Amino acid sequence: MAKPEILKQLGVNLPGQHYPIIIGNSLLSDKSLWQRLVPSGKVMIVSNHTVAPLYLSLLQQAFGDYQCDSVILQDGEKYKNQESLFAIYDALIEKGHHRDTTLLALGGGVVGDITGFAAATYQRGVRYLQIPTTLLAQVDASVGGKTAINHPLGKNMIGSFYQPQAVVMDLTTLKSLPAREFNAGVAEVIKYAVLAGGDCLLKLKALLKTKHKSNPAQWAEMIAICCQIKADFVEEDERESGPRALLNLGHTIGHALEAYTHYQRWLHGEAVAIGLYCAALLSAEICNLPKESIDEIEQLLVHADLPRRIPVDVDLKQLHSLLFKDKKIKNNKLRFVLIKNMGDCYLEEQVDETCLSKVLKRAVEGE
Amino acid sequence: MAKPEILKQLGVNLPGQHYPIIIGNSLLSDKSLWQRLVPSGKVMIVSNHTVAPLYLSLLQQAFGDYQCDSVILQDGEKYKNQESLFAIYDALIEKGHHRDTTLLALGGGVVGDITGFAAATYQRGVRYLQIPTTLLAQVDASVGGKTAINHPLGKNMIGSFYQPQAVVMDLTTLKSLPAREFNAGVAEVIKYAVLAGGDCLLKLKALLKTKHKSNPAQWAEMIAICCQIKADFVEEDERESGPRALLNLGHTIGHALEAYTHYQRWLHGEAVAIGLYCAALLSAEICNLPKESIDEIEQLLVHADLPRRIPVDVDLKQLHSLLFKDKKIKNNKLRFVLIKNMGDCYLEEQVDETCLSKVLKRAVEGE
Repeated sequence: MAKPEILKQLGVNLPGQHYPIIIGNSLLSDKSLWQRLVPSGKVMIVSNHTVAPLYLSLLQQAFGDYQCDSVILQDGEKYKNQESLFAIYDALIEKGHHRDTTLLALGGGVVGDITGFAAATYQRGVRYLQIPTTLLAQVDASVGGKTAINHPLGKNMIGSFYQPQAVVMDLTTLKSLPAREFNAGVAEVIKYAVLAGGDCLLKLKALLKTKHKSNPAQWAEMIAICCQIKADFVEEDERESGPRALLNLGHTIGHALEAYTHYQRWLHGEAVAIGLYCAALLSAEICNLPKESIDEIEQLLVHADLPRRIPVDVDLKQLHSLLFKDKKIKNNKLRFVLIKNMGDCYLEEQVDETCLSKVLKRAVEGE
Repeated sequence: MAKPEILKQLGVNLPGQHYPIIIGNSLLSDKSLWQRLVPSGKVMIVSNHTVAPLYLSLLQQAFGDYQCDSVILQDGEKYKNQESLFAIYDALIEKGHHRDTTLLALGGGVVGDITGFAAATYQRGVRYLQIPTTLLAQVDASVGGKTAINHPLGKNMIGSFYQPQAVVMDLTTLKSLPAREFNAGVAEVIKYAVLAGGDCLLKLKALLKTKHKSNPAQWAEMIAICCQIKADFVEEDERESGPRALLNLGHTIGHALEAYTHYQRWLHGEAVAIGLYCAALLSAEICNLPKESIDEIEQLLVHADLPRRIPVDVDLKQLHSLLFKDKKIKNNKLRFVLIKNMGDCYLEEQVDETCLSKVLKRAVEGE
């Protein structure tokens, strides 16, 4: 077994709470790390049927003589629901976990979001750690304390802001990630590159030109850059009353597409990829994003084998009405994160519905 | 219709959040009050089938041309559950409520706890107001931001700390409260009197000797005293990591009794009444509470027509094991709020199990 090695460490500093983001190799088996992060002798690991067979026993071994229980959920966004949430509560109560327990989210964004929400609400709040095993969860869901489950009528409709005690990213876990899942994670990295521009964008382009998937360790720096961008937004605006909303770039249409297909057709990152492309088209209409930038965004998506267009079989009217169920609605006005230039995005408070309809039509495959 | 009249106003001051507790007569119909408390034009009133027929339309009228939706739950502690919670989420989504909505909890502690939890978790947190219509909810549940639902295996197992924007107590609503419910509220008032002693205790004794139930307005001062005590504890320790735990006086055994009977035999306050009496007996054993004080507590309970003893048909072994499911367990040690003297309580971190068994036996009816 390879020796554990910490490659990068960042911090998220919020009023009354500071926590580390630790990025490295073979960290799942780092006994001293885990026993330092969890002071009480009781943990509940939440994972899913895909990840648990690969990494659960490794992590359990690292906890030595702790009471180390686990609850294994079905894999997939459609299981980020009420039933899975209550399965976690049930396990906690049945195994006698009290307020001093720690929950460990071992898996992707779904496991992280639901475990975080269970931690936020079990006995009015217990400690939890994020241990994201997918690229998408590493660069996005695991940092910042957004926790949630889905409602049949909308994604992340039920949740809370609740920060973990630490986020631990073992890059070794990326080796077992299917290419499609890896690419879905790259969609969020592209989002950061569009938001931040500059050096971040250049580094991503360089990385996408290499055989990037073959060596996850190459991604350590890129992941750290994304996490730092996210941490900065979260520190500025934990509860998304302002600037943090920019992180929703590509997500408004992305979420509607996921809801439209009941979270079954695309991975979250794939829906965000289409959402990014649509946001670029909408930005061209509303705030004059140059055509070269649309092409640049499209090329990034192409390099990561991600979809860009809305398939022809999607009913645009229904998609449009789903957009009005979005959480980011304010006073019945549709708000969108738009791109003025690479590295320069803003929140448009009032998007014209006719303009949006036109852009959606233009985003359809073959148009 | 009587003119709205504010009798008392207190404040709860927490870091980053200050909110008023407003006590008065005929406040439900005070248009200017409500429209001042709710800035956005959308509210969702949560109530139950007992309270709604009495007060819902009054409150709705006060909101004039706001979008004023409502969801009416079954009445009773056993409906403080997953199904009721999701009925609130469903109504919010179906009626198109977004992050700028305000939830109004019109009812007793059950409605308040579940509405608060729905507000804490709908779209990661929306505003809510507590409008307690029972004495118990006025002096206890509505102040301090503890929100929760029950799990079949334990009371308040799922919840969060989430403060309301305001607490509005219309004393007029106490007139419709059945005597049994009123008395259950007095149990919590007795708890405050034991915790605070002194003037609070004297005032309560005087009040209990009058025909107090016939004139709820007489209770305005007593309610304000209780709310002030609670607000002080909450300000000192919002998340109950220390002193706030003293407010659980009488609740450890109270909760176990409620769980034992599946929340169907006693009202919460009645179970707390028995819990208070047991806490007094336990205090005599562990910290020498004088016999006169036990009698004094028993007399207060008698004056309020409240139960004191554990009925003979309760299986003490099962009750004992339920006590170990309590949220206040720490490192598997049973913690109890005990009474040294009237007005002088403390948290005993380690109660001897044999001593507890002895006291439970002694508390049984007829012993």
